[in-house]
Amino acid sequence: MPDPIASNKPWQEVAASLQAHRDATIAAVRTPLPPLPSSIPRNTMGLAAQLLTGDEVAITETAPEALLSQLSAGKLSSTAVTSAFLRRAALAQAATNCITELLPERALARAQELDAHLVLKGTPVGPLHGLPISVKEHVTMGGGLKTNAGFCAWAEHEGPNALILNYLWDAGAVFYARTTQPQTLMHLETSNNIYGASVNPFNTALTCGGSSGGEGALVGFRGSCLGIGTDIGGSIRSPAANQGLWGLRPSAHRLPNTGTTSTMMGEEQIVPVIGPISTSLEGVKVFTKTLIDQRPWLKQPDLIPIGWRDDVQWLKKNDKGAKKLKIGILSDDGVVRPHPPVLRAINEVVDKLKGVDGVEIVEWKPYKHDLAWDVIARLYFCDAGREELQAMEASGEPPRPLTKFIIHENSHVPKQAYTAPEIWKFTRDRDSYRTQYAEHWNSTGGADGSDMVDVILCPVGPGAAPPLDQSKYWGYTSQWNLLDYPALVFPVRCTPPHLVLPICI
Amino acid sequence: MPDPIASNKPWQEVAASLQAHRDATIAAVRTPLPPLPSSIPRNTMGLAAQLLTGDEVAITETAPEALLSQLSAGKLSSTAVTSAFLRRAALAQAATNCITELLPERALARAQELDAHLVLKGTPVGPLHGLPISVKEHVTMGGGLKTNAGFCAWAEHEGPNALILNYLWDAGAVFYARTTQPQTLMHLETSNNIYGASVNPFNTALTCGGSSGGEGALVGFRGSCLGIGTDIGGSIRSPAANQGLWGLRPSAHRLPNTGTTSTMMGEEQIVPVIGPISTSLEGVKVFTKTLIDQRPWLKQPDLIPIGWRDDVQWLKKNDKGAKKLKIGILSDDGVVRPHPPVLRAINEVVDKLKGVDGVEIVEWKPYKHDLAWDVIARLYFCDAGREELQAMEASGEPPRPLTKFIIHENSHVPKQAYTAPEIWKFTRDRDSYRTQYAEHWNSTGGADGSDMVDVILCPVGPGAAPPLDQSKYWGYTSQWNLLDYPALVFPVRCTPPHLVLPICI
Repeated sequence: MPDPIASNKPWQEVAASLQAHRDATIAAVRTPLPPLPSSIPRNTMGLAAQLLTGDEVAITETAPEALLSQLSAGKLSSTAVTSAFLRRAALAQAATNCITELLPERALARAQELDAHLVLKGTPVGPLHGLPISVKEHVTMGGGLKTNAGFCAWAEHEGPNALILNYLWDAGAVFYARTTQPQTLMHLETSNNIYGASVNPFNTALTCGGSSGGEGALVGFRGSCLGIGTDIGGSIRSPAANQGLWGLRPSAHRLPNTGTTSTMMGEEQIVPVIGPISTSLEGVKVFTKTLIDQRPWLKQPDLIPIGWRDDVQWLKKNDKGAKKLKIGILSDDGVVRPHPPVLRAINEVVDKLKGVDGVEIVEWKPYKHDLAWDVIARLYFCDAGREELQAMEASGEPPRPLTKFIIHENSHVPKQAYTAPEIWKFTRDRDSYRTQYAEHWNSTGGADGSDMVDVILCPVGPGAAPPLDQSKYWGYTSQWNLLDYPALVFPVRCTPPHLVLPICI
Repeated sequence: MPDPIASNKPWQEVAASLQAHRDATIAAVRTPLPPLPSSIPRNTMGLAAQLLTGDEVAITETAPEALLSQLSAGKLSSTAVTSAFLRRAALAQAATNCITELLPERALARAQELDAHLVLKGTPVGPLHGLPISVKEHVTMGGGLKTNAGFCAWAEHEGPNALILNYLWDAGAVFYARTTQPQTLMHLETSNNIYGASVNPFNTALTCGGSSGGEGALVGFRGSCLGIGTDIGGSIRSPAANQGLWGLRPSAHRLPNTGTTSTMMGEEQIVPVIGPISTSLEGVKVFTKTLIDQRPWLKQPDLIPIGWRDDVQWLKKNDKGAKKLKIGILSDDGVVRPHPPVLRAINEVVDKLKGVDGVEIVEWKPYKHDLAWDVIARLYFCDAGREELQAMEASGEPPRPLTKFIIHENSHVPKQAYTAPEIWKFTRDRDSYRTQYAEHWNSTGGADGSDMVDVILCPVGPGAAPPLDQSKYWGYTSQWNLLDYPALVFPVRCTPPHLVLPICI
């Protein structure tokens, strides 16, 4: 956590200054956007076709794997791709308020360098050659940039690159956009006192989710095809879900997450993770594989040295030797029943899966998900929220509504910081729950461990994207942080501008 | 941690009662030992040949892999092997005071059951078929047994089997002996108020090490060929070293360690681990492989799902395609210079390695091992030693000398339990040191990560086994707990009764 920097300016002036900086970086994007319509429609997804060139629309609506293939073959220049995403990101800001700054100068310099490399050497620098990648702002970016992580008091904080950025850079990435996050990073929405609220490009009356909501809105708007989020309770998955995107919350200790800027650094009862949000599954895959292939455990020692595994036989074989996948359907966690559209989407997926050879569908009974929330919520703010409160007090900024909800009004947040014996007790509670859930999972198979459920299919939240400041039920995502299971979000119906109904696997 | 059980009896009576129980279990071993010599020599290693049968000596001095091969082929019965180890363990108790109880009745019933199985089915029940395994007492054993973990107040504590015992049982193990540990488990020796001090079979004026010192003395005496220890600062390695044995401290989250009885449960800044002490490398291997092959991560969710890897190419190839191993020699940690015999042993190993084709020897420069101790020592007793002090106060037992040293006189133990912000700070210090050490390691190779040192060879402690209550320097072992590197101890000169000079790799 950075030391709060005392400022003589009121927090409103700090915010205004950061907004002005953001606007200036957007104004530096060439060619400037044409004038926006006097009234931006609630569903902003038609704006790009009106205001960008046909080439720009085509590029930004291409899946990352297809872009990478063309970039590495020299069929598309990184300069052209970066320029297109810069302009669409500028438009995304106008539509959804998802950007903290664009980086046109350094991004285009980088793109040109990569283009020159390809011409000169004939080979791409790495598997992400020339691809623009957007970055949640608290994933610290060095080289003179500042990182506020959603707090006015941290406006002047500078730090070196988060480790993940160095790996992506070495693989050929272009960093061109930094995106919003909420005050405290502990909302399932994206609202802070610096930039206000980020909203959903499919319906600006609704939230883009959070805390990686700037990424959600930007990638949802197709102002990015691949971005970096972080997740300790749903922060990658909620934005992926609310915009109908792909998002991966990897297990803890898998992808390099050191060097970010936030409160609660050193807390490890519930480990925050880093992962991708993308318009395609291949985007998620190339991001993850590129990092793992660079053996990040050599530089971040808590990462587990398991290489990328293409050779694992994930599927069991049935009696006839055919592959078989057993899917447990968790449509209702027993605490908050999902809205009918979510249940309809689940049923739709199940109906399709039932027709797939080798797939077996079974019901997944929830196991004490109410207890799970008690266990994880007690572990989130073991310092009584002191670091968050201090960061707000340092500038005098008020708590946002969902900050009040998760800290001030949360009965799981103690009055005083917990001491070692209390933390150990709650850690034992966590381990006990994890063990019980493992037994629950093991019980889906035979006594010898055979024929267990392979994967759980469940909602990412109880409904589609909610109106602002209403995202108060974390249970459908925080459940898997508590258990530290990897979770992939995928879109079910992603035909904008209609309802987006994602499922978490 | 068990609740301390208030007893109306003074702790001395509790201790006397537990000693009487131990003696009764030893007296139940058939055939009773012949009368011991009126004076037991300091070096007790000759006793077995005098007092046991030739067959018993032969069996108990056979390596575990050879015993397993004969047991699974029916050439040796588990009953014969178990009887032999029970008798030699009884003798080990007389020599070194390393036993808390023997289990002749249940062990022989188990052995007979296994023998019958082999006759009936023609196949062993698993890879440990019929092999007696000794167990450090705080590795909780169920079925009506009690577990005091070195505290008088816990004398009546009962719990179910620690998870590891179920896996070993399913693989065919026979549990026949439980062994001593020190008060608090936080000594590098083995001394408590229940049983007194356990000593070294090669020289009873010296310590057997600790905290798995009962195992060290028993396996050293050859009253066991394979035993279970635990380690948070050197507790497997110190006994392995002091008796010239093999001992493995695996990485955290590798072998199933839930269900043990101790203080500080739920503490995870420095994770306690479980592992084998054996008379052979193959003993270490079969123990570890047997556990991993049973996929213990299905029942203990924090374990990492990596199977046993026989197929990994650990060694790099040199220019000519030959395998190459680069060994870093850390002969002095820069804090406490090892005694000349230890340095001589290191040099002896290095001289031999220099003659081996494909081995490259380089110096390993220590990196701030004094700082490392500061970092780990602050993380050991974050509750100000409250649980240990409470467990002692509950019975009125006094602290043993090394308890005073590590709690009462240790400047790293706070006056009051640390709070969450303090623990987070010390955790960041830990991670910072781990990262610096990783950089230190990476710097031994080229910029591309090639040609790095593969393994460090270093002493397990600054000297051979010390006189009692003198084992106060943890740095040569706790260093690798802090870094969470796996560490294997092996004997260099293991010709009893002479000096034992082990090396940690």
